[in-house]
Amino acid sequence: MASNSFGNLFRFTTWGESHGPAIGVAIDGCPPLIPLTEEDIQPWMDRRKPGQSKFTTQRQESDKVKILSGVFEGVTTGAPISLLIENEDARSKDYDDIKDKFRPGHADYTYWVKYGIRDYRGGGRSSARETACRVAAGAVARKILGPGITVRGAVVQIGPHKVDRAKWDWNEVGQNPLNCPDAYTAAEWATYLDDIRKNGSSIGAVVELVASGVPAGLGEPIYDKLDSDIARALMSINAVKGVEIGSGFASAELSGEENADEMRMGENDIPHFLSNNAGGILGGISSGQDIVARFAVKPTSSILTPRQTVNKAGQNTDISTKGRHDPCIGIRAVPVGEAMLACVLADHLLRHRSTRAKA
Amino acid sequence: MASNSFGNLFRFTTWGESHGPAIGVAIDGCPPLIPLTEEDIQPWMDRRKPGQSKFTTQRQESDKVKILSGVFEGVTTGAPISLLIENEDARSKDYDDIKDKFRPGHADYTYWVKYGIRDYRGGGRSSARETACRVAAGAVARKILGPGITVRGAVVQIGPHKVDRAKWDWNEVGQNPLNCPDAYTAAEWATYLDDIRKNGSSIGAVVELVASGVPAGLGEPIYDKLDSDIARALMSINAVKGVEIGSGFASAELSGEENADEMRMGENDIPHFLSNNAGGILGGISSGQDIVARFAVKPTSSILTPRQTVNKAGQNTDISTKGRHDPCIGIRAVPVGEAMLACVLADHLLRHRSTRAKA
Amino acid sequence: MASNSFGNLFRFTTWGESHGPAIGVAIDGCPPLIPLTEEDIQPWMDRRKPGQSKFTTQRQESDKVKILSGVFEGVTTGAPISLLIENEDARSKDYDDIKDKFRPGHADYTYWVKYGIRDYRGGGRSSARETACRVAAGAVARKILGPGITVRGAVVQIGPHKVDRAKWDWNEVGQNPLNCPDAYTAAEWATYLDDIRKNGSSIGAVVELVASGVPAGLGEPIYDKLDSDIARALMSINAVKGVEIGSGFASAELSGEENADEMRMGENDIPHFLSNNAGGILGGISSGQDIVARFAVKPTSSILTPRQTVNKAGQNTDISTKGRHDPCIGIRAVPVGEAMLACVLADHLLRHRSTRAKA
Amino acid sequence: MASNSFGNLFRFTTWGESHGPAIGVAIDGCPPLIPLTEEDIQPWMDRRKPGQSKFTTQRQESDKVKILSGVFEGVTTGAPISLLIENEDARSKDYDDIKDKFRPGHADYTYWVKYGIRDYRGGGRSSARETACRVAAGAVARKILGPGITVRGAVVQIGPHKVDRAKWDWNEVGQNPLNCPDAYTAAEWATYLDDIRKNGSSIGAVVELVASGVPAGLGEPIYDKLDSDIARALMSINAVKGVEIGSGFASAELSGEENADEMRMGENDIPHFLSNNAGGILGGISSGQDIVARFAVKPTSSILTPRQTVNKAGQNTDISTKGRHDPCIGIRAVPVGEAMLACVLADHLLRHRSTRAKA
Repeated sequence: MASNSFGNLFRFTTWGESHGPAIGVAIDGCPPLIPLTEEDIQPWMDRRKPGQSKFTTQRQESDKVKILSGVFEGVTTGAPISLLIENEDARSKDYDDIKDKFRPGHADYTYWVKYGIRDYRGGGRSSARETACRVAAGAVARKILGPGITVRGAVVQIGPHKVDRAKWDWNEVGQNPLNCPDAYTAAEWATYLDDIRKNGSSIGAVVELVASGVPAGLGEPIYDKLDSDIARALMSINAVKGVEIGSGFASAELSGEENADEMRMGENDIPHFLSNNAGGILGGISSGQDIVARFAVKPTSSILTPRQTVNKAGQNTDISTKGRHDPCIGIRAVPVGEAMLACVLADHLLRHRSTRAKA
Repeated sequence: MASNSFGNLFRFTTWGESHGPAIGVAIDGCPPLIPLTEEDIQPWMDRRKPGQSKFTTQRQESDKVKILSGVFEGVTTGAPISLLIENEDARSKDYDDIKDKFRPGHADYTYWVKYGIRDYRGGGRSSARETACRVAAGAVARKILGPGITVRGAVVQIGPHKVDRAKWDWNEVGQNPLNCPDAYTAAEWATYLDDIRKNGSSIGAVVELVASGVPAGLGEPIYDKLDSDIARALMSINAVKGVEIGSGFASAELSGEENADEMRMGENDIPHFLSNNAGGILGGISSGQDIVARFAVKPTSSILTPRQTVNKAGQNTDISTKGRHDPCIGIRAVPVGEAMLACVLADHLLRHRSTRAKA
Repeated sequence: MASNSFGNLFRFTTWGESHGPAIGVAIDGCPPLIPLTEEDIQPWMDRRKPGQSKFTTQRQESDKVKILSGVFEGVTTGAPISLLIENEDARSKDYDDIKDKFRPGHADYTYWVKYGIRDYRGGGRSSARETACRVAAGAVARKILGPGITVRGAVVQIGPHKVDRAKWDWNEVGQNPLNCPDAYTAAEWATYLDDIRKNGSSIGAVVELVASGVPAGLGEPIYDKLDSDIARALMSINAVKGVEIGSGFASAELSGEENADEMRMGENDIPHFLSNNAGGILGGISSGQDIVARFAVKPTSSILTPRQTVNKAGQNTDISTKGRHDPCIGIRAVPVGEAMLACVLADHLLRHRSTRAKA
Repeated sequence: MASNSFGNLFRFTTWGESHGPAIGVAIDGCPPLIPLTEEDIQPWMDRRKPGQSKFTTQRQESDKVKILSGVFEGVTTGAPISLLIENEDARSKDYDDIKDKFRPGHADYTYWVKYGIRDYRGGGRSSARETACRVAAGAVARKILGPGITVRGAVVQIGPHKVDRAKWDWNEVGQNPLNCPDAYTAAEWATYLDDIRKNGSSIGAVVELVASGVPAGLGEPIYDKLDSDIARALMSINAVKGVEIGSGFASAELSGEENADEMRMGENDIPHFLSNNAGGILGGISSGQDIVARFAVKPTSSILTPRQTVNKAGQNTDISTKGRHDPCIGIRAVPVGEAMLACVLADHLLRHRSTRAKA
């Protein structure tokens, strides 16, 4: 059934396979009169695109975005915005060896069972290449949010190595190829990852997202809560296995006294909070604090070491994946996570307008 | 905007406040010809209902379910199934002291900001009382899943104390008031929780859910993945701050070799897996393995110790909550989590039927 | 699959069978802070309820509405509004003779084929009794629309007899039992209908709806156009076989010159139109003119004259329906059509708020 | 808000403006393993494309469809099918004269009010050019329906001139440029239309659609009835002002005896009907009879004769449209109507699979 759309009032639909001629996204529900050019979108694409360091896949894609509709004389019209990205560096031959085998930990087997057909070339539709479309949609979502709302992300853990939060510097994130918010940790991670890369192995990671400037009141209880929608959005990203908000799983160890984010009246008659265990969301509605979400990314299943598996004919066999892959896919998941969070917020910003009887 | 419905082909809509005359749920999309009586639903309600031990709120509710529609001569008709549960033991007076104050860590403040009105009696719509309706819907979902698919849950952590997995016994879960799968741990937790209860405090928890017998193929990539929908479902439960599938956040520390669940051909031409880091879901589609999900529940924000807060008039004040509350709301979250997982699975079972051109 | 909900941001879900204990509706997405009592809803119910004249079924139902949720201290809270209506005068025995036969022109046969089960008592879920819930939802929708927007309806044709438009008087509609906007025509229709009633026969009708005060700009092209949603809403009413907007089917005979509703600037910088062939909708968006829609209602299929049919056993047989039925169901369709139009408008009023970047 | 998608389980999303670089559609929910090539789609496009006779607009578009995704090795994969159609013959200069004026009877004014911006070039998004995407989606829908279900359409009325039903011949429809099912009438219409064309005027029409081979049981009461969805689908087509099913508005003049489609048992234990006033739908569910729907198409508002209007500056003015337009847009609406009906049926075929507990 139809399942390639995300969002409600602000909704995007993606299409395209890893090794098809192009991928794309139709973005529906963007308000009119917002200035938008391809230059607004491209920088976000560039942050996600592959082949930029030895820590990401060597596939070379310029990921140039073309706007095909929805913009007239430099501004959005309210009509759907169609974005097209051509695939340039697909090497389907790399996949000949594994076309009849299922990579353990990959969607190969389940796609085969569900659909009875498998586009083995680069993973087809299940490839993380699809996430380029999410980043493009996220760029448009940011235009809706406006400059007052920022959505940023960083890798906070690779393997067992966590970032030193005392040294957190958002400006550092774009300065190293690991999306690490701390230069010192970044250097350590680089050494660690280099070994993994040379061994043809891979490793997991944790990404943290922070949205600042989000007004209180976004989120629609009971079943379209802001945190529910964030959880859904982030869990839909390839290789994500966990999502948490604020203190997340650590909340299990907190007492009611510790967990309660106490409140005091602040400037402009807006209360402020003395802590942020809630991650900016209470009862599914934004509180005005920073929204903080984290997600865990499993290691890429395409590795060099042979693993036991089965093939389409139902026989036991081994598999070793020689294609071009990310040793730590979590790194490139940062702009994707940011984009999904931006899309959820843009959607809820529009949804919230219908809450009050008088606008 | 409308946001009180959950699900797609199998969809339920809940209504009702904690201290209103009744709460209820309309379950839409249940296939016809399924035998269904109130007795099929009541046992699941009884597992969640309050007042059954000193570790849960002392509010006394029989939570008797009445079927008002959708069943004729003992079987479902395909029409919506309306279930009604009367509120019997609401004590709105308990809330007089806090009606103008916002409990830190609670939805009081955000509901006030969003809606400009607050039903302070027992939390109104934001109360966990709403989850009784989810359990009722889950009971119907289990009938759709049939006896071959089981959905079970247990508390695996309270505060810093984790269950001993070596002693896991599903039969034990219903035998102790803590939904703990290990009698020895249950006794330890009871002592620990008793202290918390006497101090008028509260503590967080982690719940684990396991669905067995789920066929491979359920889940609709890209944006209605099975794990996305589970994440959304569980995060929508009151007080939940994190969701993970399979190895979850621990995946961050796994190498590609460790994470890969190797496969061998098994009986009936169905492959089996040598491990289950995936938690039964690959690429958003069930693999035929057990589906394993966990969620973190924060401590109840209604505690006796005074906390700093503000009131509706915008003044700083203190608050201490004296109502009847759960010292560890995670315990009663077990049947709610099970119900939500059952509803997601029933929905996807129906959705999957439309995937293949020929049924 | 789930299909008992109508609307998007303002959405209601109905449940209940003709001869079950009760019917009801959960109205989701109503903005908060709107004054609402049962007295606001009841007058609209009374217009639809049966047994008020010899021209409608003699079933006696008080159709008293109870508000079970969503209202606190006399105003809406933003939570779902649950309304309950008890069934009081179901006579299931009347249907014993036809329980195994399919009434020609009725949903008996298709429900049987689709669901494999048939609640024969008064038509079960397929009964027009369900429309009482629509009228209740419509009453809430009118509160959202506010006093500036009115939605009115009248019967304009019964059998071959059309109303005299020169004598149209909206005040007359509530003064006669036929919802006719012209007293003279009403008297003629009464004589005509009396014959039909005595013969145990039935006759079709056309209903016209007019919404005044609707601002320009409502409607969401391309696929959620205002007229698309109106067409869907009206066609979903029992026995409706056609829907038209403005000049409707007569447009086929118009030239471009005749059809063009010419424009002149009017007061307050708002243009006015010199005619209304468009029925107030251009390109799926309201123009600020009156919205005019008509729908055709077929005659009730429950008639005394024996008709050829088949039974559940697959045998040829005859059927004659002796229950209490409406000789012209179109009369009672007037408040139902009004309610559906009000619901569509309320939904689009809320939807439109998300269109512009700045509210 | 997002509103450019149609359908539920089988859902398509269109994008693109009349004078942009391209238009396109993403078709989501198509089952896998269906053979599909561009050659399957093109013939349907060719039936709709402009410039094929003097009775349609002289804009020259080849309307060549490119498949960009969702097909692998000649069959569908279950992934979204992206189709692209380039615009080749846009003459935006034709619109310079009217860029600041609103054509009476056209969406110019309402788009301006709603969005605050107007893509005047060929009507932008409101252009009937968008319907090319519907025809492409309809071609895929037909593949899902399979050869046993046919969806055909014909013009049955142009201006006051109705087709002679006694001479109805489906094979004739493709033989004349007017989509008329009767050669004699076609010739008369041609003469009539030629005058209208030479005068720079336009005229309305009625189109009839017939779907044969549709199994009984499709349609989801109460609010996703098959006829509701058909009404919505057809009313969403540009210039459509009315929709009716079976006897439609003529039902108003029928007695219950006349309207009842009597039943007799037929071959294969399937009942047949002695008439088809219902148009193949009872209670919102298909009965197994032919599904018959008609829709009224108003005359094109782009005409040569000056009409009174206003402009963006709020001044009274006159307008005369000199672009290339259809004298009777109803002719080219035939393949569009067929496509929408095919899409509704394909969607409901997939939906119906989830109805029964066991597939």
